[in-house]
Amino acid sequence: MKIGIIGAGQLGQMLALAGYPLAIEFLFLDSSADSPGGRVGPIVTGPFDDPASLRRLASDTDLVTYEFENVPVAALAAVSKTRPCLPPVEALRVSQDRLLEKELFGRLGIPTPPFRAVDSLEALRAAVAAVGLPCVLKTRRLGYDGRGQHYLRRARDVGQAWAALGGVPLILEGFVDFDREVSIIGARSTRGETRCYPLAENEHRGGILRVTRAPHRNARLQRAAERHLRRVLDHFDYAGALTIEFFVQDGRLVANEMAPRVHNSGHWTIEGAVTSQFENHLRAILGLPLGDTAAVGHSAMVNYIGTMPDRERVLAIPGAHHHDYGKTPRPGRKLGHGTVVAATAAARDRLQRRLMRHVPR
Amino acid sequence: MKIGIIGAGQLGQMLALAGYPLAIEFLFLDSSADSPGGRVGPIVTGPFDDPASLRRLASDTDLVTYEFENVPVAALAAVSKTRPCLPPVEALRVSQDRLLEKELFGRLGIPTPPFRAVDSLEALRAAVAAVGLPCVLKTRRLGYDGRGQHYLRRARDVGQAWAALGGVPLILEGFVDFDREVSIIGARSTRGETRCYPLAENEHRGGILRVTRAPHRNARLQRAAERHLRRVLDHFDYAGALTIEFFVQDGRLVANEMAPRVHNSGHWTIEGAVTSQFENHLRAILGLPLGDTAAVGHSAMVNYIGTMPDRERVLAIPGAHHHDYGKTPRPGRKLGHGTVVAATAAARDRLQRRLMRHVPR
Repeated sequence: MKIGIIGAGQLGQMLALAGYPLAIEFLFLDSSADSPGGRVGPIVTGPFDDPASLRRLASDTDLVTYEFENVPVAALAAVSKTRPCLPPVEALRVSQDRLLEKELFGRLGIPTPPFRAVDSLEALRAAVAAVGLPCVLKTRRLGYDGRGQHYLRRARDVGQAWAALGGVPLILEGFVDFDREVSIIGARSTRGETRCYPLAENEHRGGILRVTRAPHRNARLQRAAERHLRRVLDHFDYAGALTIEFFVQDGRLVANEMAPRVHNSGHWTIEGAVTSQFENHLRAILGLPLGDTAAVGHSAMVNYIGTMPDRERVLAIPGAHHHDYGKTPRPGRKLGHGTVVAATAAARDRLQRRLMRHVPR
Repeated sequence: MKIGIIGAGQLGQMLALAGYPLAIEFLFLDSSADSPGGRVGPIVTGPFDDPASLRRLASDTDLVTYEFENVPVAALAAVSKTRPCLPPVEALRVSQDRLLEKELFGRLGIPTPPFRAVDSLEALRAAVAAVGLPCVLKTRRLGYDGRGQHYLRRARDVGQAWAALGGVPLILEGFVDFDREVSIIGARSTRGETRCYPLAENEHRGGILRVTRAPHRNARLQRAAERHLRRVLDHFDYAGALTIEFFVQDGRLVANEMAPRVHNSGHWTIEGAVTSQFENHLRAILGLPLGDTAAVGHSAMVNYIGTMPDRERVLAIPGAHHHDYGKTPRPGRKLGHGTVVAATAAARDRLQRRLMRHVPR
């Protein structure tokens, strides 16, 4: 069994590392031969929307998956005519568009901030009036890690926001003054078996995930998040791992976005859960029984952004695991992560503080 | 940092999988291009004692290690003149010879069965008289997985034993009517830091390891085993993982043999310990801080010998992990293993029984 992975970033690398013990082989497609995945498997070098490269990926593998959601839908749809492509193309399509995503959440009864589509300055003014201030103007497509967003505090910010982002399809969303951010990851197999991981609590800065702590123990929120996640999974007749990020506001979940793939906020599952999100993604798309998603202990995952910490100092922390994606350092780039696991949340918090002392900000 | 691994079997494969997150690269040397390691890294194909292949391995890497102990000592010694070779060549040399090994154990105060070197039929007769019956005649070198051994119950078995094994250097050992077999794995870094895993209990059949359960909780035996292991590690100024297998007889440890490498009886550490033996072997030879060797829960590892079990049935067991080395099935060949981890020993035993129902004997 050989799986083609569109994208050879760290997520692709971690998928392959999880799959080798199951005797799965991998072939990556990436625009750069010097990608993390290329260190652990062969790589087809080419643009993600290049028909020839995609054809080669598909013809040399039994099944195609992807590790990031900016794969062109048309390209994936073409591939899916010759090879199974999972997660389903339709989930990819919806996740690429914040408007479609929020509309789906709404149809499935999953709470979201108020939102309006915006395609003109007039529509923006009307949307601000309808959604209320403060609010956030976002590009509908290709926004991630905080890019393509503009915060509106006052009515007179409208012009500046429009100047910054106008000209592409936009969405205006009510600003959620959240207490915390959480995410849930689940996997659904081609046979319909579904498993959900415990909620993880996330801290972003500059729109980039910095820290994840899991499990975030709140039985009521866990039940609600699982209910929401299962609705999305079933809606798409989904196969693979899927992530939904939520704001928690006044004790309620407000859906922010979804990702039809393994997710940075699930890296803690490598050491901190019985079965990692990566192995469960593979089990899910292969129609194998899903693995136990329970947490083993309490984990904190700290992203290394822009600069790597000293490896020795990290490894000297009890129970610490160090992941170096082998990427060239660049400001704002995710270069690796560290995970600490402890028997109690308090011990985990202590280890996390120790880890963060070594991680350049 | 690129590490050369002599041998590309499953142990080499698991070393590489543990090393990739640390951004270590690997190059294997193996006589077969179709080895498990070749699925996860490049491979130099050649005999283990071929000077040209060894030179290429050494010249293309920063550090050389090995995953099995039948590497010719002279070949490794030659490599070590150009590249660091760890674990040390001297530990390899001693471990290749049951007589040197037992003599070392004796000098270090580690109990062994009574033993005598045997190089003639007369010497065998004298050794049987000295060691007592029953006893086991073994080749001093190149014996593993039960090969090269002959059991002597009565004095008249001497002739048959000599006929079976005579002509190569032999050792006669007193037969240990053991209560159980256990092994301890430890790692010592180039800086002298040492960590020991909990004892594991092993079941062999036909001289091949079938099942390992860990941790084997016996504080007195654990202390004794760690004391013995540390003496061996310090004796060699060792770096890397090292395993000692013991018989337990009347509540006492009797050393059987050692392996200067990661070991089949430590596969449970991948999912069942905070840091796997594979990661700690790499940390040790690189001089990095060693990882926590504590068990997380209770594990059982079942080897797949000769025939693979049905993957789906294994993965359907809660908390089960399946390792398929991708090897061609052959009677007596280690093709993979399964590991179950549970919160209690009783729950682990139940999962182990369920796993074993699916593993062909």
